[in-house]
Amino acid sequence: MIPYGIYVLTADDGKGNVSAATVNWVTQTAFAPPLVAVGVKTDSHGYGIISATKSFALNMLGKDQKGAAFTFFKPTEVKDGKLSGQSYHQGTGGAPILDDAVAAVECKVVEIVKQGDHHIVVGEVVEAHVMKPPAGRPDTAILEMKDLGDNVFYGG
Amino acid sequence: MIPYGIYVLTADDGKGNVSAATVNWVTQTAFAPPLVAVGVKTDSHGYGIISATKSFALNMLGKDQKGAAFTFFKPTEVKDGKLSGQSYHQGTGGAPILDDAVAAVECKVVEIVKQGDHHIVVGEVVEAHVMKPPAGRPDTAILEMKDLGDNVFYGG
Repeated sequence: MIPYGIYVLTADDGKGNVSAATVNWVTQTAFAPPLVAVGVKTDSHGYGIISATKSFALNMLGKDQKGAAFTFFKPTEVKDGKLSGQSYHQGTGGAPILDDAVAAVECKVVEIVKQGDHHIVVGEVVEAHVMKPPAGRPDTAILEMKDLGDNVFYGG
Repeated sequence: MIPYGIYVLTADDGKGNVSAATVNWVTQTAFAPPLVAVGVKTDSHGYGIISATKSFALNMLGKDQKGAAFTFFKPTEVKDGKLSGQSYHQGTGGAPILDDAVAAVECKVVEIVKQGDHHIVVGEVVEAHVMKPPAGRPDTAILEMKDLGDNVFYGG
């Protein structure tokens, strides 16, 4: 019954390994410092890169970005300077920031909790970018799991 | 921009200390075993009880339970067998289950991540109760932060 937003978790190790994956198991966990926790599948491409670089970005998708959400359920393809067809630029910490996302936060990993089939990556927010300032409540600007259709309940 | 559901986090140490607090920093983090992570204020009454008992419950509030959400922003009062006026029963693990909640999960604590002004309590779900089976998507049955009014952005 937990409602979720939809995010693209990105990472880049600077050696040609770039990852972007749609995730939803995300929550803030502290104000000071600003921390977020993300459940990340341990056998995923992104988990390996994040474990090595200790750095990632969370891109907040907008209500009109269902296509991007489904695109990043699949393995990432880097081609023509795009990530699976989506234009992006590199954030301060190296992780890709999707140009069309509503906003993004860049995080440094402070701890990885190795419990379960997905581990909990705890990140401190070190940069924040708002590409499309929301008109109303910020938490109504984001694409939500329930917007993806009646049969979509993907976790992680 | 992270959208949140609204939960009442409960704990009982069996020695007269009972806590119930409205929280929203909640996410599932693994399928196997089923884990949830909750950001809990370190100086709160509930944090002390949960740290000691290694046990808690998360009660999912329904769309019609705004009153209960605001009630448990305030300190818990146990009186006439009720928690701040809300009827409840004790779960298998001892933590209070609110009778009027939509559903609840009981968890045993597997780890507490001591980062930031709120710590991340990681719980394995050991019992689940559905008091009001939802007609549609389960994630549309829960009260959400944005339902509480334009100025409510409480975290933790």
